[in-house]
Amino acid sequence: MPITKTIRVDLPGRAYEVAVGTDLLAEAGRRIAARAARAVIVTDSNVGPLVAAALVEAVVAAGAATEVIEFTAGEAHKNLDTYRDVMDRLLGLSDPPDRATLLVACGGGVVGDLAGFVAATALRGLDFVNVPTTLLADVDASVGGKTGVDAPAGKNLIGAFHQPKEVIIDAAVLKTLPDAELGNGLAECVKHAVIRDAGLLDFIVENAQAFRERRAAALADLIARNVAIKAAVVAADEREAGQRAHLNLGHTFGHAIEAAAGYTLGHGACVSLGLVAACGIAAGRGLIAPADADRVRDALAALDLPVRFDDAPSLPAEAKDTNRLREIMAHDKKARAGVVRFILPTALGAAEVFDDVTDAEVRAAVAALDG
Amino acid sequence: MPITKTIRVDLPGRAYEVAVGTDLLAEAGRRIAARAARAVIVTDSNVGPLVAAALVEAVVAAGAATEVIEFTAGEAHKNLDTYRDVMDRLLGLSDPPDRATLLVACGGGVVGDLAGFVAATALRGLDFVNVPTTLLADVDASVGGKTGVDAPAGKNLIGAFHQPKEVIIDAAVLKTLPDAELGNGLAECVKHAVIRDAGLLDFIVENAQAFRERRAAALADLIARNVAIKAAVVAADEREAGQRAHLNLGHTFGHAIEAAAGYTLGHGACVSLGLVAACGIAAGRGLIAPADADRVRDALAALDLPVRFDDAPSLPAEAKDTNRLREIMAHDKKARAGVVRFILPTALGAAEVFDDVTDAEVRAAVAALDG
Repeated sequence: MPITKTIRVDLPGRAYEVAVGTDLLAEAGRRIAARAARAVIVTDSNVGPLVAAALVEAVVAAGAATEVIEFTAGEAHKNLDTYRDVMDRLLGLSDPPDRATLLVACGGGVVGDLAGFVAATALRGLDFVNVPTTLLADVDASVGGKTGVDAPAGKNLIGAFHQPKEVIIDAAVLKTLPDAELGNGLAECVKHAVIRDAGLLDFIVENAQAFRERRAAALADLIARNVAIKAAVVAADEREAGQRAHLNLGHTFGHAIEAAAGYTLGHGACVSLGLVAACGIAAGRGLIAPADADRVRDALAALDLPVRFDDAPSLPAEAKDTNRLREIMAHDKKARAGVVRFILPTALGAAEVFDDVTDAEVRAAVAALDG
Repeated sequence: MPITKTIRVDLPGRAYEVAVGTDLLAEAGRRIAARAARAVIVTDSNVGPLVAAALVEAVVAAGAATEVIEFTAGEAHKNLDTYRDVMDRLLGLSDPPDRATLLVACGGGVVGDLAGFVAATALRGLDFVNVPTTLLADVDASVGGKTGVDAPAGKNLIGAFHQPKEVIIDAAVLKTLPDAELGNGLAECVKHAVIRDAGLLDFIVENAQAFRERRAAALADLIARNVAIKAAVVAADEREAGQRAHLNLGHTFGHAIEAAAGYTLGHGACVSLGLVAACGIAAGRGLIAPADADRVRDALAALDLPVRFDDAPSLPAEAKDTNRLREIMAHDKKARAGVVRFILPTALGAAEVFDDVTDAEVRAAVAALDG
């Protein structure tokens, strides 16, 4: 059996399983065909030829009717134009979809978010199976049910919560993943370690080389550990009223840097800088030891992620400007009535929400990144 | 107190109340301001000057910050273009909305469906209060959480289930409602009577003149009875797995006629024809007595609703063509794998789902409408 581990995401009435393993596409085909007589697979122009074509073969071999909707790859296409295009193509199929039609996402975070939003809103909700193909999508977007697209006013401002029926993660497909994409996923793994599992930080550092070599078994272990962390957090708090907010560690700074840079720097790189900033503030408050903050920073650096602004030479000046970053933070959709909430580690493996981070602390954290 | 009745819609975790009464706008303002420091009111170009302006005054008088987003009235604007326009204006407000921002719909079914869909998908879900202003929206769209827009491939194909936090229905605002709009709402009231409450049919016939004169007290009673029926059905079956399907009585035929006519005939008129057709099939099967079918038809006629094709002279020939109607029914989003499901009354006040309605029965029902 190529399945390493199956993790249950325990949401009342909408529980589902995440299967993690290697060389899982044939198994994915059987599972999809067992679920529906007809599947529409949504993918992008990068993943289509690399992975989705093999998935389609597997689904057809397992006996289900299959159609493919492919859109142009790239974050820039995660918008209402693409949503509408995919929706119109789905609803306009010569044999129109009905409520028994299964939607399958095969791709990275953009595909999962966009196809998930189409599934959430076509015929007021179609069943949805996610087959993510990037490490970031595997450990982050694949669990939690967040779907959506970007708006002119900001990222992920339009969307819905729509839980998949099943997630099937094949670590072997990561062999073609570019280095920067791998790093994006690893940044979220470090975040999970900081908020819930200090031992995971050691595991990541010890296996950094195996991850860089795309060794499927090591990646499957990493993915399974991270999916389990995210599943536990989401199951405890589906709608982000409480502890799910901890998953935003590093993201208040990270999103602000990403937006100030006009989305020219990858999400994971921005989160990495955000994790360093949050750990810096936590160390400054005595919540964690300075040595713990250093340990996180060194782990990120070992994974080739930026830990100072200089590590990302393409970053424009606005993205290093405290005033600009604070302005963006105040308008973050997670801000309430303008109060910016920060997640800070209270130990390695634990975190809490803070509403009282001062301007001076933010300035010091930005200055440290610039140091 | 102007409140006639408060009906609780009992959905686990998302229960809400529908307040029905007369001259309720000041009370609506207080309730909205009690719920949020900031409300964005979505309305259309018809309702804006007539009702929404007064609601805005009431909300401001009650102490909440208020902004208005108005779009051009009409079914033709219930599409992704208008959705996107309203969404962009909401997200682009100079003080951008956050998760504490309340969205308020003030208008008919198009406004409620569209604003509800914006609420369902802005920042992955904002709280939503509905202040419907047509009888159809009062007794039908205001309860059940269906939100969405039309697609090129068909009506209501894009949307989400998103329950309001509260619905406030002022029967006094119906004084400016055009006759045809009033009839649209009355058709749904007859439908409710047929599936759940034979006594309501008598009440409707007895008060037909009071409704035509827009007497607010009589309309408030009618609305309260109908909201209670719909609330009970929806609470028992939020996602249309079972008895909620009964609300589609008359709608399989009705939607097909509406689509075949290119949406040139009102929804209520089409439903009225659909109710006659469904009751005719039921009488033909001996499920109800021919006299019961006559009673429903006579009630619809007393309300100035069409009960034969000739009562709607504008109806194009395609909308009377059995083959065309059957083709549209087979592609209805409620069809499963091409099998058309009909709701038929099994007595006045009761209904069931039937998958075995024959081609001959459909032809006979259409022929009777043409007789």
